[in-house]
Amino acid sequence: MQIKTLKELAEHVNATVFGDGNIKISSASTLDRAGEGDITFLANDKYEKQLRTTKAGAVIVSEKFRTAAENGEIKTALLIAENPYYAFTQIMVLLFGHRKHKNIGVSEKASISATAKLGENCDIHDFVVIADNVKIGSGCTIYPGVYIAEGVTIGNDCIIYPSVTIYDGSIIGERVIINANSTVGEDGFGFATANGSHHKIPQVGIAILEDDVEIGTCCAIERGTLDDTVIGKGSKLGDLIAIGHGTKIGEHCLLVAQVGVAGSARLGNYCVVGGQAGIVGHINIGNGVQIAAQSGVINDVADGKAIFGSPAIEISKARRAYSMIQYLPDIRQSVRKLQKQIDKITSSNNPDSQESNK
Amino acid sequence: MQIKTLKELAEHVNATVFGDGNIKISSASTLDRAGEGDITFLANDKYEKQLRTTKAGAVIVSEKFRTAAENGEIKTALLIAENPYYAFTQIMVLLFGHRKHKNIGVSEKASISATAKLGENCDIHDFVVIADNVKIGSGCTIYPGVYIAEGVTIGNDCIIYPSVTIYDGSIIGERVIINANSTVGEDGFGFATANGSHHKIPQVGIAILEDDVEIGTCCAIERGTLDDTVIGKGSKLGDLIAIGHGTKIGEHCLLVAQVGVAGSARLGNYCVVGGQAGIVGHINIGNGVQIAAQSGVINDVADGKAIFGSPAIEISKARRAYSMIQYLPDIRQSVRKLQKQIDKITSSNNPDSQESNK
Amino acid sequence: MQIKTLKELAEHVNATVFGDGNIKISSASTLDRAGEGDITFLANDKYEKQLRTTKAGAVIVSEKFRTAAENGEIKTALLIAENPYYAFTQIMVLLFGHRKHKNIGVSEKASISATAKLGENCDIHDFVVIADNVKIGSGCTIYPGVYIAEGVTIGNDCIIYPSVTIYDGSIIGERVIINANSTVGEDGFGFATANGSHHKIPQVGIAILEDDVEIGTCCAIERGTLDDTVIGKGSKLGDLIAIGHGTKIGEHCLLVAQVGVAGSARLGNYCVVGGQAGIVGHINIGNGVQIAAQSGVINDVADGKAIFGSPAIEISKARRAYSMIQYLPDIRQSVRKLQKQIDKITSSNNPDSQESNK
Repeated sequence: MQIKTLKELAEHVNATVFGDGNIKISSASTLDRAGEGDITFLANDKYEKQLRTTKAGAVIVSEKFRTAAENGEIKTALLIAENPYYAFTQIMVLLFGHRKHKNIGVSEKASISATAKLGENCDIHDFVVIADNVKIGSGCTIYPGVYIAEGVTIGNDCIIYPSVTIYDGSIIGERVIINANSTVGEDGFGFATANGSHHKIPQVGIAILEDDVEIGTCCAIERGTLDDTVIGKGSKLGDLIAIGHGTKIGEHCLLVAQVGVAGSARLGNYCVVGGQAGIVGHINIGNGVQIAAQSGVINDVADGKAIFGSPAIEISKARRAYSMIQYLPDIRQSVRKLQKQIDKITSSNNPDSQESNK
Repeated sequence: MQIKTLKELAEHVNATVFGDGNIKISSASTLDRAGEGDITFLANDKYEKQLRTTKAGAVIVSEKFRTAAENGEIKTALLIAENPYYAFTQIMVLLFGHRKHKNIGVSEKASISATAKLGENCDIHDFVVIADNVKIGSGCTIYPGVYIAEGVTIGNDCIIYPSVTIYDGSIIGERVIINANSTVGEDGFGFATANGSHHKIPQVGIAILEDDVEIGTCCAIERGTLDDTVIGKGSKLGDLIAIGHGTKIGEHCLLVAQVGVAGSARLGNYCVVGGQAGIVGHINIGNGVQIAAQSGVINDVADGKAIFGSPAIEISKARRAYSMIQYLPDIRQSVRKLQKQIDKITSSNNPDSQESNK
Repeated sequence: MQIKTLKELAEHVNATVFGDGNIKISSASTLDRAGEGDITFLANDKYEKQLRTTKAGAVIVSEKFRTAAENGEIKTALLIAENPYYAFTQIMVLLFGHRKHKNIGVSEKASISATAKLGENCDIHDFVVIADNVKIGSGCTIYPGVYIAEGVTIGNDCIIYPSVTIYDGSIIGERVIINANSTVGEDGFGFATANGSHHKIPQVGIAILEDDVEIGTCCAIERGTLDDTVIGKGSKLGDLIAIGHGTKIGEHCLLVAQVGVAGSARLGNYCVVGGQAGIVGHINIGNGVQIAAQSGVINDVADGKAIFGSPAIEISKARRAYSMIQYLPDIRQSVRKLQKQIDKITSSNNPDSQESNK
């Protein structure tokens, strides 16, 4: 852990200090738990009230709080940054760094094929199995229990956490992180039904994770039947995500936990998919599309759209519409009542039925 | 397996025998499959009819069946218990016991750091890896392929099933059970987006599983960014559950398979969350809240509420409302028809339009 | 890889050649990517337009395209087959074969109990653990990191991918495939709540996978409490699927990724369950039932039904009804407007209120 002054941190993240720049910061915490020596941040408006009560040494905020600070409404020292969350991230990296991986070299308890090629400075832990014709770049860390099947290629500086399985032929880029118990390149779910049973289709496409991809734990990235499955450069997947065969996830997408994307779907770049959302196969999702949690996407989506619901529709419309499901019993009752009122009016306007009402 | 008389079982679970207390019980089964020598139970009203037809040696029931038994409507011997399901559980434990774990000691094929500390009577299986500075209590069973990262603490009498990964610094209480292929303490899904890419935020919180927690298979319990992620004492998680970073699950909660709880959410004690339900981040769920399967919870929930739906609302209201989605086409058509009828009435009340109708 | 003429392929799959039967086919691809020497297929109408533009050597199509071919509208050589997808599958198997598993015999780095029995020609990889009294048939491939607990039985010709865990007593049929990181036979989620805590119920049923079952990655198949959990012959499960305790999946079912089936549910034969669908416990689903993605099934379903929605209803009705949720705000507003119009009409028909309106 590092100790820095607030002024040093401001320089590091290109932010402005409001208050005492000589405050010493050694750690970070949340607004409600931070104390002296801690830096924290405000990026979610929900917590704005805590800005007045926090005991933090300093808070990273956006420009819009400058006036409140100048008016003396905020007592805490501030770092005013264009993107407070990113400034906070840079400071976290400075103070704590990323996880350190012990330098262990290549364990004698790992099983590595004579035909596998390892780059320099790799740490290969106990009980790793690396099959024939695998190529691994330099600076990779492969944790215990990982299995890397025949012909897999892995770039430089990757981290593969324990018990990950990478099926044959998969291609992993540089600086890729795969968390524990995930699987890459297993057979796509492809069966042809004939004569009363389901016949497995050889899956000859592969799975490709491009540079800077991170995969959560317990994810399943199928290989393609014919086309390859691709997770584009810089995309980050949460935990327990299922990606179907031949699906293309674009670059710099964020997929939150438990998302499922069926086979042969295409997502553009910079898409964000909320938790538990599902996307059917064979559709095209544009660039910059935002899909809210639990949505069910069944049609193509144009660039830049934000959608929600199952079936998913434009989000502002969906928020209103789905929140009105609760009024369905009232609406139905109102409609019935209206029908009765109208029947009464109609019949009272009709001399024959008036007769019968006598 | 034990053989007991019905009377002995009654004493063991503090229940009343109705019928022959000398019947010998050696096993247990379901109402429809049980035969002589089997005990079974009725806890779900759905199966009440089978109480008259079961071939079981004895059935554990609640007080409300006493009258039917006294009237001779039920032929089978009964154990009348306050909580039949709990009585059945106690009898299952008596007759079968919990899974026995072979006493193997510490395998020579496990890789255990010299700086790790193991309590007495631990069984550490082949191909387990225990990293530096890990502390494990006494009486723990660690199955093959488990990886326990640096600085993890595990209490007494825990069972860690195969291929579980516990990331660095996690704290596991006493009598905790973690089923196969689950992951505890992986990095939270935290990225700051700037300059066109997503920057990983060091996750310096940890994951804590308190005493008597059970985690299913393929679960993912993220560590916190700043705050710790906590699964409270006695809580039980099913399979394929994702818990976000910094989330607090209270004590004695039950989370059914495939539940997802996003980061920084808080659940109180004694909550029950049905399968595939999702809870968004940064909300507060009170104590004793019941969330039905597939719900999507997006707002705070007060103590004791039962909710359902996506978005989730009070359950009795939700059941009615969601079951009426099927009537939407009818309702829409009725509304259109009413509009036409009213337009006609309005126009017939209007002399000018009457003119034009001639 | 094999090279075949189109005529040879036609004979192999019992199809008719339309065009030059001497074309040489060495590989397969998708309609839009295929080139000379590639065979492809058309099974999804969505891609029909590509039939006119594909550069493929040949395309497998159904009978209905014969006329277009005879009219010279399709330039590419065709294989006309009764079931194009199955014909394609057979050709894929012919050209590529299924995954080859290296013949390695029984690794010295595997830990195999002296009381375990292995059939002939098994490949048992490094770091596999096979516990006491396990029986494995002949021709099985068990990949690294697999754990097979006490008393498990596995039939002939099974493939168990890395880091799979099979709990004690499970029974696996012949030609079963279990993909990486899946778990079979873990304890059912069964707890009795009493005195403020949840008491674990010994789960004495087992998990049974019948012949020709395939299980995806990261699946969780619970053992039964009393009854066994059964996945019927020929059924195929995608990734990240949770099957509850005592549940029976019939024969030849297809369950797509992230499906959850709660305990004691019964599915008939030839059911298809779409991705992320959930099925509650203790219900009966007939034979040949089709459940669309993300459905929530809470009631018994008769043979042959197709359903969708949460709660799930008949699919054609559901598609219409759920697609109308978006109109709820309009409907509600219309109903209010109608009410006002009717109130006005009613009051204008009422002399007293007319009086008060003066």
